[in-house]
Parts: sequence; structure tokens; C-alpha cells
Amino acid sequence: MGRPVTIFTGQWADIPFKELCVLIKKIGYDGLEIACWGDHMDVRKASSEKAYVNEKLETLRNSHLSCTALGAHLAGQCVGDFNDPRLDGFAPAQYQGKPDEIRKWGIEEMIHTARAAAAMGCSVVTGFMGSPIWKYFYSFPQNSDEMIEEGYQTIKNLWSPIFDEFDKLGVRFALEVHPSEIAYDYWSTKKLFDVFENRPTLGLNFDPSHLIWQGVTPHLFLRDFADKVYHVHMKDASVTLDGRSGILGSHLPFGDSRRGWNFRSIGHGQVDFGSIIRELNDAGYTGPLSVEWEDNGMEREFGAAESLEYVRKMNFSPSTVDFDGAMEN
Amino acid sequence: MGRPVTIFTGQWADIPFKELCVLIKKIGYDGLEIACWGDHMDVRKASSEKAYVNEKLETLRNSHLSCTALGAHLAGQCVGDFNDPRLDGFAPAQYQGKPDEIRKWGIEEMIHTARAAAAMGCSVVTGFMGSPIWKYFYSFPQNSDEMIEEGYQTIKNLWSPIFDEFDKLGVRFALEVHPSEIAYDYWSTKKLFDVFENRPTLGLNFDPSHLIWQGVTPHLFLRDFADKVYHVHMKDASVTLDGRSGILGSHLPFGDSRRGWNFRSIGHGQVDFGSIIRELNDAGYTGPLSVEWEDNGMEREFGAAESLEYVRKMNFSPSTVDFDGAMEN
Amino acid sequence: MGRPVTIFTGQWADIPFKELCVLIKKIGYDGLEIACWGDHMDVRKASSEKAYVNEKLETLRNSHLSCTALGAHLAGQCVGDFNDPRLDGFAPAQYQGKPDEIRKWGIEEMIHTARAAAAMGCSVVTGFMGSPIWKYFYSFPQNSDEMIEEGYQTIKNLWSPIFDEFDKLGVRFALEVHPSEIAYDYWSTKKLFDVFENRPTLGLNFDPSHLIWQGVTPHLFLRDFADKVYHVHMKDASVTLDGRSGILGSHLPFGDSRRGWNFRSIGHGQVDFGSIIRELNDAGYTGPLSVEWEDNGMEREFGAAESLEYVRKMNFSPSTVDFDGAMEN
Amino acid sequence: MGRPVTIFTGQWADIPFKELCVLIKKIGYDGLEIACWGDHMDVRKASSEKAYVNEKLETLRNSHLSCTALGAHLAGQCVGDFNDPRLDGFAPAQYQGKPDEIRKWGIEEMIHTARAAAAMGCSVVTGFMGSPIWKYFYSFPQNSDEMIEEGYQTIKNLWSPIFDEFDKLGVRFALEVHPSEIAYDYWSTKKLFDVFENRPTLGLNFDPSHLIWQGVTPHLFLRDFADKVYHVHMKDASVTLDGRSGILGSHLPFGDSRRGWNFRSIGHGQVDFGSIIRELNDAGYTGPLSVEWEDNGMEREFGAAESLEYVRKMNFSPSTVDFDGAMEN
Amino acid sequence: MGRPVTIFTGQWADIPFKELCVLIKKIGYDGLEIACWGDHMDVRKASSEKAYVNEKLETLRNSHLSCTALGAHLAGQCVGDFNDPRLDGFAPAQYQGKPDEIRKWGIEEMIHTARAAAAMGCSVVTGFMGSPIWKYFYSFPQNSDEMIEEGYQTIKNLWSPIFDEFDKLGVRFALEVHPSEIAYDYWSTKKLFDVFENRPTLGLNFDPSHLIWQGVTPHLFLRDFADKVYHVHMKDASVTLDGRSGILGSHLPFGDSRRGWNFRSIGHGQVDFGSIIRELNDAGYTGPLSVEWEDNGMEREFGAAESLEYVRKMNFSPSTVDFDGAMEN
Amino acid sequence: MGRPVTIFTGQWADIPFKELCVLIKKIGYDGLEIACWGDHMDVRKASSEKAYVNEKLETLRNSHLSCTALGAHLAGQCVGDFNDPRLDGFAPAQYQGKPDEIRKWGIEEMIHTARAAAAMGCSVVTGFMGSPIWKYFYSFPQNSDEMIEEGYQTIKNLWSPIFDEFDKLGVRFALEVHPSEIAYDYWSTKKLFDVFENRPTLGLNFDPSHLIWQGVTPHLFLRDFADKVYHVHMKDASVTLDGRSGILGSHLPFGDSRRGWNFRSIGHGQVDFGSIIRELNDAGYTGPLSVEWEDNGMEREFGAAESLEYVRKMNFSPSTVDFDGAMEN
Repeated sequence: MGRPVTIFTGQWADIPFKELCVLIKKIGYDGLEIACWGDHMDVRKASSEKAYVNEKLETLRNSHLSCTALGAHLAGQCVGDFNDPRLDGFAPAQYQGKPDEIRKWGIEEMIHTARAAAAMGCSVVTGFMGSPIWKYFYSFPQNSDEMIEEGYQTIKNLWSPIFDEFDKLGVRFALEVHPSEIAYDYWSTKKLFDVFENRPTLGLNFDPSHLIWQGVTPHLFLRDFADKVYHVHMKDASVTLDGRSGILGSHLPFGDSRRGWNFRSIGHGQVDFGSIIRELNDAGYTGPLSVEWEDNGMEREFGAAESLEYVRKMNFSPSTVDFDGAMEN
Repeated sequence: MGRPVTIFTGQWADIPFKELCVLIKKIGYDGLEIACWGDHMDVRKASSEKAYVNEKLETLRNSHLSCTALGAHLAGQCVGDFNDPRLDGFAPAQYQGKPDEIRKWGIEEMIHTARAAAAMGCSVVTGFMGSPIWKYFYSFPQNSDEMIEEGYQTIKNLWSPIFDEFDKLGVRFALEVHPSEIAYDYWSTKKLFDVFENRPTLGLNFDPSHLIWQGVTPHLFLRDFADKVYHVHMKDASVTLDGRSGILGSHLPFGDSRRGWNFRSIGHGQVDFGSIIRELNDAGYTGPLSVEWEDNGMEREFGAAESLEYVRKMNFSPSTVDFDGAMEN
Repeated sequence: MGRPVTIFTGQWADIPFKELCVLIKKIGYDGLEIACWGDHMDVRKASSEKAYVNEKLETLRNSHLSCTALGAHLAGQCVGDFNDPRLDGFAPAQYQGKPDEIRKWGIEEMIHTARAAAAMGCSVVTGFMGSPIWKYFYSFPQNSDEMIEEGYQTIKNLWSPIFDEFDKLGVRFALEVHPSEIAYDYWSTKKLFDVFENRPTLGLNFDPSHLIWQGVTPHLFLRDFADKVYHVHMKDASVTLDGRSGILGSHLPFGDSRRGWNFRSIGHGQVDFGSIIRELNDAGYTGPLSVEWEDNGMEREFGAAESLEYVRKMNFSPSTVDFDGAMEN
Repeated sequence: MGRPVTIFTGQWADIPFKELCVLIKKIGYDGLEIACWGDHMDVRKASSEKAYVNEKLETLRNSHLSCTALGAHLAGQCVGDFNDPRLDGFAPAQYQGKPDEIRKWGIEEMIHTARAAAAMGCSVVTGFMGSPIWKYFYSFPQNSDEMIEEGYQTIKNLWSPIFDEFDKLGVRFALEVHPSEIAYDYWSTKKLFDVFENRPTLGLNFDPSHLIWQGVTPHLFLRDFADKVYHVHMKDASVTLDGRSGILGSHLPFGDSRRGWNFRSIGHGQVDFGSIIRELNDAGYTGPLSVEWEDNGMEREFGAAESLEYVRKMNFSPSTVDFDGAMEN
Repeated sequence: MGRPVTIFTGQWADIPFKELCVLIKKIGYDGLEIACWGDHMDVRKASSEKAYVNEKLETLRNSHLSCTALGAHLAGQCVGDFNDPRLDGFAPAQYQGKPDEIRKWGIEEMIHTARAAAAMGCSVVTGFMGSPIWKYFYSFPQNSDEMIEEGYQTIKNLWSPIFDEFDKLGVRFALEVHPSEIAYDYWSTKKLFDVFENRPTLGLNFDPSHLIWQGVTPHLFLRDFADKVYHVHMKDASVTLDGRSGILGSHLPFGDSRRGWNFRSIGHGQVDFGSIIRELNDAGYTGPLSVEWEDNGMEREFGAAESLEYVRKMNFSPSTVDFDGAMEN
Repeated sequence: MGRPVTIFTGQWADIPFKELCVLIKKIGYDGLEIACWGDHMDVRKASSEKAYVNEKLETLRNSHLSCTALGAHLAGQCVGDFNDPRLDGFAPAQYQGKPDEIRKWGIEEMIHTARAAAAMGCSVVTGFMGSPIWKYFYSFPQNSDEMIEEGYQTIKNLWSPIFDEFDKLGVRFALEVHPSEIAYDYWSTKKLFDVFENRPTLGLNFDPSHLIWQGVTPHLFLRDFADKVYHVHMKDASVTLDGRSGILGSHLPFGDSRRGWNFRSIGHGQVDFGSIIRELNDAGYTGPLSVEWEDNGMEREFGAAESLEYVRKMNFSPSTVDFDGAMEN
């Protein structure tokens, strides 16, 4: 199908952007979902310096790569997360240990990201929103209903002004439903859209890998939220329960074989990409299929190449014929 | 088998203790695991006032109920949890919003609990320990290995002085492996025992209901930690995935049918109690089987009665015969 | 729970009504869903002869049985079915081989049934509606969309005048979703309600046994149509695929072990009645649980007795306590 | 293996025969199972006009394609179906609404088909037989055993004279076991062969896609009827139950994602073609593997190409070595 | 149903016969399948001493127990087994280490068993036959086909003279299909009957527990060999694979939790007794259901009592009504 | 990854070595695990005649194939097996029917094999050890614990002197865990290593195909014995239970479709090679992946070629990047 196959640069931020473009083209991808960290995209520069943008665009042009989205996962997390010391790794050094300043930075960064996207000519920013109530997914100590409600409202209050800026620029935000976020599964996503009264600024960066180990069927999630899908991640995960491993991961690092699940190179997990493609076809989605490649058990370039081959093979178009129609005299 | 079947009073704390004893005996249980809240057990009184203890013991005697353990889940949680505003519901009113004072209160409360247990003549306190790193079960924002290590050490530092008091009194602590705790699944439990260098004070209040929805097989967990089992909860849970529901519960309250799992009255979930009894028999466990009854979809007394019937039926003894031995001339 | 447990007399129509009442009471049921055939209920008499009704009511009173619904499956089928020679067994002898007259008889019979129900003091008639397009469930020779649409409209046209009579009498019709009917699974049921614009006269006689072998999950069906459930059948079925047997039954009679599924006495099939009861509790359904007993592999009275015992055990009430509420100081 | 890989032209009848031959050869197939509709094959012409046949043969030769069978699904259905208004799309326009004439036309057409096959040099006609009792697969209104028996006899009576003509021409008929047919699963197939007393004229066009959603295991069906397999369809289907979708398809058109199953391009469903190939090898089947391609969710030419690749890969020969034999000194 | 529920005394041979009869009656069984070892039955005495038989019969009468079969597992094994040193435990002490004499003793013992059965008034002897090729179930070192054939012939040669004696006495032999026997699964059973040309002397003591862990479906086995079922064992087993345990048992003793399967008290394993009862009903089997109780993880008398309760509940009769028949006017 | 992909020549011993090398290279393999039978390797010659070794090495060099191991399955079996007449096919003709001489020959042959391996420059001998207690895997007639213990000791006694010779030569023995061997599953393997006190001479030729049909999960076996893996077989098997087939194979030859499992060409069975590669990567295994190709249902050269392609694709390296590391500013 005409859908471009792109790759998210977030897991390749250790490689300088120019070098990465050459590598990714060599592998054969059509474009990039550019992460806004490392040297891949400095959104403050991009939102103000035309030369910076031009240089990025030229680098892309040289490799015949398109830019289909900017990925703002780190800054977005800083907006809505609840005072998590681990945010120190996301915000600039001067804000370490100062949660209020980190949040303020995150908000500004998101607005710059929308401007950078517009400057780069792409209309979608993917990323996270954070959550002040993530820890409350397990209600012990017990939550009241009000605590949950308040969490959603906080997110609405924090993000609405940011989305106003997005609207002005004609840029949309595609939330990656994910643990640590206000929307991390089916019903929490539904609730989020309800709270935002289906504001069109907010849609989804559909990523099946975060749903499958929670027991949610990705293509049913996709079917019900089809009109909200602004961007798509192709990412796989494998549930590896063996009686002792657990779905919550045992405080073990990603990739450890004792965990109950792990991210996997596409085709090495249990995500049913065929059904996903069919739902995308039904929905008329023609945007990019962006490989977010992450597999601690496989060499990265090998994996990026086999994933591209896999997605190309799966990226089929719907039928243009009515089969039964042909069966008559 | 000779194992007594008891009930945990935590879910019945709205009923005054004397009244509850009459009710529980009428249903037919052998004894109680007494929750240290409501009017069931005031550990500060019990640790200092002989009359208070005598009254409790007499109430039990009148109903021919034994007391096999004290349950200190709320206070224990206050010791190790990380600054969770929801702890305000656990600690006395004067400490609301003061996490350091709540922790201090929790530590003292636990010591009083050990004394209360000794005074009541029972040698096991069941409960929680809290966790400063519970939220880090999902490593985003990313954890370092050091953060995890530090979490376990904090727990060790907080609880070792408490356990010293337990040792003096000959009382042991039985941790209920559970979300929100430092040990919430198989490998995090193993790690905890390693960090405590297998200190005998610390064992388990084995409860299969918290393991099954994480994908951990309860009886394999039990087999490997058999020598650490100081107390046993009989509690069931049902995984109810339907394509849209998720294992992390969608910020929906317990009992909501859209959740991916819920607690259930015994026999209405997927816990394999037969295999658990066999492991307990293999381990030579002769302590109480304590029903922790919780099912938002069933009337409480009906459930407590059918659970008792279920456990009595399952509470079989191992064989005393070698079957093959009989098959020879 | 207060829900009465009744039995549908359709499978016992070989036993005279008076005799049956004695038998059913001896087994222990609370009431009857009376089939409108055999000598159980002559709806034309009941709609016009007070003495007939009084005699039926007295017979019921003598056995302390309630009448909670009339079952009009045969007449209802005659209304909407498409020219099926097998209807000859349902309609009076004089209409054999005359499909138009059978249909006319069916329509009149249904109106009499509503009157009979009102006379008997019960507000629900259970039954079938027939379908002119049942055979089209498999689209070969190919259906056009119009053919399907037309089928639904025909049903609406045939039944709307009947329902007008029901409305006048304050009686509702509870369709048993079932093969051979216009609504035979989830989406065809949804379509039917859409076509009838959710007319309150038309609801469901929920029966899980017809859904399970089609692969539909009964309790999810129930959840989505909860407000339409006017009556409930407790009936079980077992899918017995073995590689050679098939779900469409191979033109083999019910009960043949080579079939891919069969009806079964409650608890001998795969219906999850626990989940059904939970949905009924959530929906606030307080009507009868009516055992429709059918199992060609089991002696009938034995089965009716064990089914009653099973349903009584499952007929639990929802919780009246908030468990988490009890867990605080 | 030497088995040719062909394609059934029924789903391509919108493309003129000559054009289609070029396309199919370009994709890489070895031959065709030619549908007797569209302009692909006019059996009345072929049975009488040598020039017509010669032209067809030359077209095939030009594309280096063989013709391994004629597909007579539409005419065959008209022979045995019961008065189905949908047959109007199959028979010539002048017979619309006249079931007896449609049947008569069908019978004559089948005889012409056998002659056309002989003229084309192929010895197998694939297709359907129809069924007067298809609707009776669900016995409500209730069937008597006699009704079923009568249905099989009707088919025998209708087809025996046709088969007499086949025998004279040395052509065999390969029934595609399929819903709407007298034989639609395992036991109904066995019954059909019994009724025909294993007449060699009648065999099977084995097609796993119609069995899998009925719960029948295709390779076990194949094993037991191995000597009756005269032709093989390679066609896939996927069961997509999700709690609400149902196996009977909800009166939804093929391809709708809410259906409980759909046809799929080979390798995108659940048919185990590996096991099928092994059974064919065991049976010594050396005839064509004919791809019947149908997938409303995939572009047709893309699918035909990937299916060919799949079948080529699966079309392996049995071993010619006794492995254990090599393991000795 | 009228089928008596009996118990096999083989696993109770440590208890003297008289004492056992009292115990078994107290539990509530209807009769015994008496093992021919311990003091339960000395077949040589029984075949020659009328007084011995009378005493046994009187003991049974005193407890109102019937004798429905004699169990000759040990002697039967000695007839056909291949030189297994473990037979020393079965044969009298003087034959230890002398395989030929053990075989000879086994043959004579079997003939005496038939006589004993006749004297006791029961027409069935249950038991084993041994196998000279059991080890060859895994063909390494490689078997030739001749070796297998020869094994079956040896069994035929050894047992035919024994069966001649059985025939004279009107006693039949019911082989328990079991590992270590010439017939240990479905196809080896079919082969055995073929080799014996379906000699009526030889039938089956159907026991599902030996089939289930081999992956054979007991009720399908039963269906196909229905006319050969002379006696039935009710015995359960549980497959307990956990990733490390294996179906071949790891040279670990029965009951060890690390094994991949174990025998279990009825209802604690995975045997589907409901389906078995239905097949027995279909087959018209009215003989005893004999509990062979063996569960190393459960106290024996507790288990025998709950098994009896389970079998009584399952021992239902087939329907005597045609349900569809009742549904017509 | 750098791991070479080799093939075991045991199933190709009917082809002369020189010819085979040409064939294998043409297919594309990197090297050979050479079987010590046929003309592939005469270990007595190789241990004494330098010219013989040189010729073999030159043949390999000419085809650019490495020799990574010698396979001594037949001789090894003769060392420990218990008097099995089928060993006559393994030992030289003069020892037929003389089990003691066969054992003696086996012992000597194994020592020569170690010498041959050293001479060929490879440090691993793969193979079997035999077992005097294999038949006792099913404890009927009953085993005592001592019998099992004695079996392991016999193996230790027989093999320790052989291993002393291996140690002198710097050659290790890699046992293929397999039915008929003293170690045939997880716990019997653990026991063997315990009995040998973890002597480094003895390790594993890991082969998943022998584990999967026993219900053992190959990659968990591999994880726990990772440090013992000296060589790896890539071999697949398929469990094909259908209700009647059984896991013990019914005395039917390999390849028969009625068996409950069969060996299969890689990718045609149920072995999860992806998980195996991940465990090998975790373990740091860099030795050969040796395809042992065996599939009675597939042409051998076709299979060897597709297996190579499969293994090459799966032979990926672990990641060299820490993905989370890249996600920070």
C-alpha cells in the first residue's frame, strides 16, 4: 500500500542525526519519526532558527527520507507526571530535583515542539502526557473515585493550554497509550477522550506492544478508536510467562529472561499485525507505519532490517473487488 | 486435616468484634486472623493493658474461636511506602499530610503489634511492608539498577529494627506478597529474602489471589518458598480478559465488570486450591488456612459460608500408605 | 437472592399440566414458564374463558407455584418463518401445507397469547419470531444487502401490529435469540433492536445455550443488552469438537455423540453461569431464572433436580458492603 | 513436488479470459481451474463448437497454462437447491422466479459441463450439488429422520442421471464440501458417499476453508476421505471470535470485521497447510493444488502472488529415505 | 442408574479382607473388584476349595457387597512381560530370578483365576497381559516392523491357551490398557484385537487414567471400542506440566510433585467422567463402575468416600424422552 | 551471529563422505558434526592412522567445511544399554547376541572416538550413554528407589573410565538427552549431573526435539543447564494429538500420521527456536548450531536447504546497546 514505512529515532539517539539518516536509508526505510532529544531535534532551535530547520530538511532530502512526525515523549512526560525523581534524566540539568520547574520546562518544551513540527512540515507530534495518578492503577492504599477524577482533570488543565497552541499551528498530538500515562489501556483511554470532550487536537499514536502484555487485544482497541488514530507504531512484545515470571516484571530490567514479558523485534512477539493492518485498512488510515524498534536480545541493525521486510510484506491494501459479484452468470 | 480454617477480619471491620465473633462461629469457622483496625484490635492497648487482652481472649473463648494471627496491613504499609497521600486514611488523623510522621507512627505501631500478638498468644503477625519503589515496577521514566537496589536497602533499614523487637518476643512477620509492596511477585520475593539474608523473622503470608492475575502460578511460588510460609490466605481471583479489559484495571474500582480481573469468593476464580493444598501437605504446613473473603459481586455472609464449605472439602491430608507397596504377592 | 427459580414446561408437554405441577413442586421449583402447547395452556381458551384461567391458577396455587411467563415459541415461529414445511407440526392440522394460513394463525395465536398472559397475571410472553431470511445466514447463493434489509422489515411489518396488542395489555415479548430466528447472535440482535427503534414491547428471553456454540460469549451479550432482558433461561450446552464433528451438526439428531455440540443439563456444558449471575446482578434483574431443561443423554427428572440445586447455589446476591471501606483506621 | 499449482478463475470472472491468462502467467501459476461463467467458459458452446474449444486451448497454450478442471459451482447449485430466490442470479434471465425451470437448466448445464471438460481434455469437474435440506441443519422447526433421509435421496435421484453422462465421458465430479450443500461437513459427507454407494463418479474437491470455521480439522477429514480426493483447493479462512462475533456471521457481508470468521489469503488464516500436504503425500495425490483466492481485506493481485509463493514453498515431496536405516554400522 | 459402584481392592491389600469389607461397606460402596493378592483372593485355593469360596462369599454377604470381578494384574503381567527383574515381587519367592518359571507360574495362575472367578460367580477377570516389546515403544535402538509383529504374536501364543480355559468356564478377560502392556494406547489396542481376530474372550477393563497423560481422549477411545468394554475403572489422573516436569516422569516416584503427571482421587484430575458416562450410556453398558483409588497426596479413606460421592452423582441414566417430540401442537 | 551452522551426518550415512561433503557445501552449510558410522568416520582408523585423518581433513577443506564434533550415538548406546537385542544392529557382526561383548566393544569404541576427535581437531564428541533402567521410567512392575539409584551408579561406573581418557585428550562428551538414555528429561538430567558431581567432561548436546513431546519446555531446560551446553542440535518435532493418537507412539514407525508426535523439518514443528537462540545468547554460547535433519514426510535435500535458511535467519546476535540509555536528554 502507499503507506510509508518509517522508523522512530528514539532508540537510536546515540547516533548523530546525519549518520543515522544514511544508515536508515541504507536499510531501506521511507522516513523518520524524529525523536526530540539527542542531536536529532532541538525543538527550541527548530521553533526559532530557520537555518536549523533547513539543515535538518536538507539532511533528510539527501537521504530521500521524509519526516512524518516529531516524537516528544520525554518532555510530554514531564508535563503530567507526579513528582517522579526519575524525571531528572529528562529535563535539563539545572532543574534536577525541582519538580515544579521540570513541569514548567515540559510545558514550554511541548509548545516549542508543536512549532518545530510545523516548521518541519509535519502535522503530528507523538508522545506521552504523564499522569499524576499512575501509581493508583492499583487501589492500595485505597483510592477514592474523586482521586481518579481529579487526576484526569489535572491532565486536562495542564494540557489544554498546550493544545490551544497546537491548534493555532494546525498540529495534532498523538498520545502513545502506555504505562505511566493517564491513558494506559482501553477504558482509561476512553475516559481520557471523554474528559477532553473528544477535542480533535488529541488523538493516538497507536502502539500494540504496550497493550498486549496487559491482555488487551490491540486490533479491537484500534477498531473502537479508529477515528482517533493519528499515527501508528509497529512494535512487538512477547509474553513469556513460565509459572514464576510475572506480568509486572519483578523489578528486573528489560531484556532479562526472567521477566514475564519483553519488547521484541517485529515478528518475534505475539502482536497480530495482520489484524492491525486490516483494521487500518477499514479505517482508511494512510499515514506512516513507524517501526519503534526495541529488543534487548537482538542486534539493532539486523532487527531494523528484518522489521522493515516484515512490515513491507504486511502493508497490503484492501480489496477493490466484490468477490461475490464475480460469481454469477 | 487438622489445619484450622480461620477468617481474616479485615473485610468485616465495620462489624464490632463481639458481634463478629458470634457471626463467624455461627458460620462455622475455627478461628480468626484479627485485623488491627476497627475495634477488632487496638495494638497499643493490647501491648500494655492486660484487661483489654483478657476481654478479647474471653470473647474468643465464648465463641470457641482461636486467634491464629494478627493482621497489620495498614500500619506495615505506612512503614515502607513512599510518600503516598492515600496513607492519610491509614494513620491517625493528626498525621494527615505528614509523611514522615506517618512513617514514624507506622514503625511504632508495628512494634506494638508484635507485643499485642505475644500478649494474645499468637506467634505470627501478617501484613504489608510498603515499598519506596513500587511505582518503578514499570521502568519509565527509566530506573537505574541502583534505584532498585536502594529501594530494597531502604526497606531493610526500616524493618530491621522492627524485626529485632519481633525476635525478642518470639513473634514472626508474614509478609503478604502483593502489589504496592517491595515483594509483589516471584523474583521480587526472592530478592527480598536475599537482601534480608533469609532472616527467620521474615516469612510469607501466602496469598494466591495476588499472584494469579500477574500470571504467576501460585503453587509453584509456594513450592519454592515452602519453608518461608508462616501463614496462608485462601483467597480467589478471576482474570476476566475480554479483548478490551486489561490486567492493570483501567483505573476502575474493584468489582467493576470492565476490569481485567477481580477478587472472587473461593471457587469462583481461577486459583487451583487443590494444587496449593498438595504443596502445603508436601511442606508439612499445619498452620491455619485463613479465608480472606472479598468479592464485590456477592453477598458477604453467603460467600463466607460457601468458602468455608469449599475449604473444608479441600483441606485433605496426604496419604499414609505406599500404594505400590500393596501391589505384590 | 430473591429471584425465583422456575422451569419451562415446553420439554414436559407430554405430561398433563396438573400432574406436572405436582412433580415440579416435589422437585422444589418456585414456579413455571408455561408452554402454550400440550394441555399446558390453550391461549384461545385462556383469552376468553375465565373458568379455564381460574382452573390453571388454582392448580398452580395448590402446588404453590407461580406463573412468571407464557412460552409461545411455536406460534411465534409461524409468524415470521419462510414457508417451511416443518411448520406443519406447529399449526392446527387443517392448515397443513398452507403457509399463508399458518402465518395468519400464528399472528392470531400471538395476540391470544398476550391476552392469556394478562389473564394469568403475568406480564411477559417468551418465544420466537421466525425469520424469512434465516437460510441467508450463509451468503451462497449470494445475498444482496437489500435482501437482508428486506427480511428485517418483513419481521417489523408482521410483528408491529401484534406488539400494538401487547402494549394495550401491558404485556411484553421476550425473544429467545436462537437459530432460525431473525436475531440469532449478537449483531443480528443489535440490528433487530435498531429496526424496531428500541420499541419497549420487544426485549429478550436471554438463553446462553444458543450463543455458546456459535462462539458468542453469553455474559458479554448480556452486558450489552442488559436493559432488554425481560426473562432468563438457564440452559447449558457443550461444544464437543473432536476433529471430525462440526458445529453445524452434520444433519444428525440432537443427542448424537457425533455432533459438534449438544444441549446439556446445567453444569454439564460450558456455559459460565457465574459470570451470567454477576451481569444479572449488575443489571438489577430480579425476574425469574427459568430452567429450560434439555439433555438427550440424561434422565429428565434427575436432571431437573440437579439443575435446580445448581441454580439455587449460583443464585447469589451482590455485595452490600464496600470492602475497601472497611480497611482504614 | 511435481504437483502443479493452479488458480480457480471464479473470483476473476470480471476479467476477460484472454487478459486473465496473461495476468495469471505473469504471476507464475502453472494452470487454471476454469470457472464456467463470465466469458471464461460457455459450456454449451464448448460441448458443441470445436472452434470455441480450440480458441480456449490456444489461449492457454500461449500462456503456457494447463487446464486441470472446470468449475461448475453455479449450475450445480441449481440442480439440488430448494427453491431459493437467490438462484435467479445463477440461471439465465428468462428463468427468473421459475424454480422448476432453473433446476432443469442446471441439470442440462451440468451435462454440457461434462462434455466441455472432455472437449478441453480435463477429466474433473469441480462444483456444488445444492441441497433441498440445507436449512434443516438446525432442527427447528423439528426435522424427522425421514426428512433428512428424503433429502439425500432427492439428491441421489437428481444427480444419478447426470453422473451417468459423466461416466460415459470419463469425467468425474469433485464436490466442494460447503455450506448450502448436501454434504457440508464430515458426517454429512460420509452419509452422501454411503447414499451413492461409493459411486466412483463422485469424489471431492477438498477445500479446507469451509471446514475450519465449522470446527472440523481439515487434515483429519482429508485422511479419512483420501481416496475420494479428485481435486484440491488451497483456500484459507480465519476464525475471529471476539466475544461478540459469531460463527454464523450475523447476516453481515463477507469481509466485515464484526463477523466471526472470514476467508483469508493463504497464510493469513488458521488452516494448517503443512498437515494437509503431508496427508496428500500419504495419499499419493499428484493432482493440482488450486488456489481459490478470496480475501475481502486484501488487494487481489498482491494476494494471488503471495499465495503462489506460499504454496510453492509448502508443496514438498515425501521422503525417499528411511532415516533409521542410515543409523547402523 | 442401576450400575453398581464398586472399588478395586488392589490398593487396599494391606488390610485383611474381612476388615476391608466392613470398611468399604461403611463408606457405602455396592461391591468389590477383588485383587488376587494379599489375603483377598488366593486363586489356587478358590479354584479347588469350596469352603474357601464359601467363606469369601459369606464375608461379602455379611457386608452386603457383591463381587463383580477378580483382578489378576500381577499374574497376568508375568505371562507376557519380557524378563523383567521386577517381576520377582509378583511371583512366589521360589521363582525369583527365574524368568521362565515366573512365566509358567503366571500362566497357571491365570487359569486358576478363571476358575476362581467362576467359583465366585463372577464372569469377568480384569488384569494385565504383559508385553515382550513394551520397551520398543521408543524405536531406539531401531525396531524393525517384524520385531513389533513378533511381539504381538508372542502374546497371542501365550494367551490363547489361557483364553481357551476361560471360554470353557464362561469367563471373559478384561485387559486394562496400560503402559508396560502390549496394548497401551488406542492404536496398539486396535492392533491387539486384530491379532486376536476379535476373539470374544478378550475385552477391556476401560481405565481413563492411563490414557489421559498419553494425550489420548478417553471417551473417544471408549466410543470406538464400546463393544469390547467388559469392565470399567473410575480412576483419575492429572497432567502437571510446568515447563520442567515431563510426561515420562523423570524416574521420580508416583506422587512426587516434580513429575509431569500423577494419579489423583476422582475429580482432582482432568478426566472428563461426564463424557465417559454418556458413552457408556450410548453403549448400553450396565456393568460395575469400579473405583481404582490411588492418590499419593491424599488420605485413602477420605478419598474413597469423596470418590464414591462423585461417581454416584455422575452415574446418571440416559433420557427416555424425545425432547423435540414434546414441542408440537 | 558468528555461530557456524552445521549438519549432523548421521541421517546421511547412506551417502559416501566425499559425495556428501560436496552436497552439503552446495546447500550452504558451514560444517559437519560427523557421524561415526557408514564411511563417514572409522574411529579406530582415525585414532591410529594419520593418513586416514588427513584424507578426511582434506575432503573437508576441499568443500570449505569445518568439523565441529564427532557423533558417537551408536557406540555410546552400547556402553550403558541393558541387554537390548536391538543393539545387534550397532555393534560389529561378530558380537551379535552377545551383550557383554557388545558393551565391551562400545567402551573401547568410545575411547577411540575421543582419540579420533582429538586427531580431527575437534574437542567435542556428541552421543548417547545408554541406560540400564530406561524401561523403569514407568514404575510397573514397581521399582524400588534403590533400583533407580543403582542404574545411575552403573552408568557412572561404566563411563568414568571412558571420561578419564577424554580428559587426557582434552575432549568433552556432550550427551544428547533422549529417550532410551539415563537422562531423558529435566530431572533425570539434573540427577545425572549430581551423580557425576558435575564432572566437566560431561555436558550436553542440547536437542529440543526430544523434550517437546515429553511436555518439557526446551528453552527453560536450556536456561537451567546453560553452562553444560557443549553442543546444540537444531531439530524440530510436532505433537499431533487428535484424540486417538498418543504420545507414546502406538508401536507405529516414525512418520506414520497416526502417531502422537513425529520429527519434523525445522519450522514445521512446535519448537520455539527464537527463545532457544535468546537463551544461547544469554549463555554466551558461540559453538555450532548443528541441524539434525529428520522428517519422514519430506524430501531430504529440500528439507536440509530450507532448514539452513531458517537457522541462518534465527541465528541473530544479542543487542550491544542499552535502549533506555538513549532515551534521555
